[in-house]
Amino acid sequence: MNNSIQLIHRPDGKPQLKDFKFIEEEKPEAGSGEILLKTKYVSVDPYLRGRMRDQKSYIEPFKLNEPVESGIIAEVVESDNDDFKKGDFVNGMLLWKEFQTSTGKGLTKVDSDKASLSAYLGVLGLTGLTAYISLEHIGKLKKDETLLVSGASGAVGSIVGQIGKIKGCHVVGIAGTDEKLKLMKEKFGFDKGINYKTTDDMDKAIKEACPDGVDVYFDNVGGEILDAAMENINKNGRVINCGAISLYNATEVPTGPRYEGTLVRKTVLMQGFLVRDHTNEFGAATKQLADWLNEDKLHYEETIVEGFKNIPQAFIDLFDGKNKGKMVVKV
Amino acid sequence: MNNSIQLIHRPDGKPQLKDFKFIEEEKPEAGSGEILLKTKYVSVDPYLRGRMRDQKSYIEPFKLNEPVESGIIAEVVESDNDDFKKGDFVNGMLLWKEFQTSTGKGLTKVDSDKASLSAYLGVLGLTGLTAYISLEHIGKLKKDETLLVSGASGAVGSIVGQIGKIKGCHVVGIAGTDEKLKLMKEKFGFDKGINYKTTDDMDKAIKEACPDGVDVYFDNVGGEILDAAMENINKNGRVINCGAISLYNATEVPTGPRYEGTLVRKTVLMQGFLVRDHTNEFGAATKQLADWLNEDKLHYEETIVEGFKNIPQAFIDLFDGKNKGKMVVKV
Repeated sequence: MNNSIQLIHRPDGKPQLKDFKFIEEEKPEAGSGEILLKTKYVSVDPYLRGRMRDQKSYIEPFKLNEPVESGIIAEVVESDNDDFKKGDFVNGMLLWKEFQTSTGKGLTKVDSDKASLSAYLGVLGLTGLTAYISLEHIGKLKKDETLLVSGASGAVGSIVGQIGKIKGCHVVGIAGTDEKLKLMKEKFGFDKGINYKTTDDMDKAIKEACPDGVDVYFDNVGGEILDAAMENINKNGRVINCGAISLYNATEVPTGPRYEGTLVRKTVLMQGFLVRDHTNEFGAATKQLADWLNEDKLHYEETIVEGFKNIPQAFIDLFDGKNKGKMVVKV
Repeated sequence: MNNSIQLIHRPDGKPQLKDFKFIEEEKPEAGSGEILLKTKYVSVDPYLRGRMRDQKSYIEPFKLNEPVESGIIAEVVESDNDDFKKGDFVNGMLLWKEFQTSTGKGLTKVDSDKASLSAYLGVLGLTGLTAYISLEHIGKLKKDETLLVSGASGAVGSIVGQIGKIKGCHVVGIAGTDEKLKLMKEKFGFDKGINYKTTDDMDKAIKEACPDGVDVYFDNVGGEILDAAMENINKNGRVINCGAISLYNATEVPTGPRYEGTLVRKTVLMQGFLVRDHTNEFGAATKQLADWLNEDKLHYEETIVEGFKNIPQAFIDLFDGKNKGKMVVKV
């Protein structure tokens, strides 16, 4: 038998277990030219929340009563395709199923000797690429500048901060527990950390941690933390809008202070970033990330949840910040 | 005797005549190496409101009980400086005085045979340069894209729209009277116009006027018109934040819908622009603007108010949209 996880309700606010349904079905067989894949690691990511909304966006919304799709590392267990052999591991956008067939289109082989399989969903996958490519395109970090990062102990944020240190910047991270702050400083080498949950005045806390102001703000969260960052942004500052997790579960139009005055007065750049728009740069970027990893300049953290049945809960836990680093489900 | 206009109160909300004071003083004389200037044309601009606030910004705030400064065309009436002779006309940031002396530093000579003197405060001055350079750096217009412009019949907006037409774009302008819309279409060649004062639903009006969405939004106003433009922005859209006149007189922190979700979802770029940051490009840009002017591809409108004593009122009238094109005071 095979197991599959479908989206059956569009979440209202924060996703809940009842929005998902487990389906038992026949285990598929590889057809002509196809491969049969066994899911090994499943990436759960905040952006999936956007696809659960019935709204035109950069990518089609999920259909109801069909399996959810995300980044997955799978093992080839049968192959009728010359490009893949039994025992190969592949990385691609695949369905939340224990077994599935594929023509191989859109899949990349990964080498389990070079890095752990789960790393290909994190530091060497879309999260690492997001950090690296967005900093190249929008952040354009210069030595001695100040880089502020929210979601700083998370999958993307922790890599952003480490790249900031590699580039010689003063790096300040924002996270939601003292344990995460400790991780940021001790494992990822951030200069300062701010616990936004225990800080009353984020504006003041950023001012203290960034005495020369903020040159680049890498934003994973949006909302009031973005407001406080904008209060401290420098002339010609750059804001990378990578995510807005604080708004994803909003059911009404979120409002806040207007930024246009600051944008004009300080000639600030704010730009949204989606790594999918930059696939032609993935090769070079992955090589740079792998080099830094091998040179021990880059470290990563994973929260690995065990068990196929725990995928929806692992996804939901993202919105409570229960992950440190990349959240991955091992099947 | 000489006349001078000082700022004596920082405006609370919209500037008022009582914020300014006329001072009679001795007419100055050119000292050694100096020139004596007689003011001919005075530029009044919305950005001056920002300098009236006691707030750190890209440029020093005006001091109370000192004359206001803006772009001015003046005639050299005495010269003890080899670089200038009597009868020359110069352009520079000068004081609101009928007569003033200068060492010549920061002044550019202008040729009254090539264009009217007031044009050097508009299409060939900072306003034309703002339009051209911001479109080059941020807008990056491509043929057949849609360009939306607010403050479209104003000094900068009217030039922005015409450059859009030169680049082969669909150009839609937003202004506050039907007369301005007529001017935009008939004189400046805009494709469509929206009267924001008689339109209930700006979102819908923009949708109708921009059936393919908005690729570039040139924003002079901020506030609710920016909100409506953001509702219609396309994937990879660019927003040039050139001004936020709707907020300049605000006495509380203005709020509105948050943009960060749209920025991420549509990978939109928003960037503030100040022409002063690009002085090294002024030469080439002025040449391009003058060429277009001579080729009859670029037209401009001026509202010329007569009389030194009317400078403060002309400035105040900007905030009621009483100007068509560049507002200039002829002394």
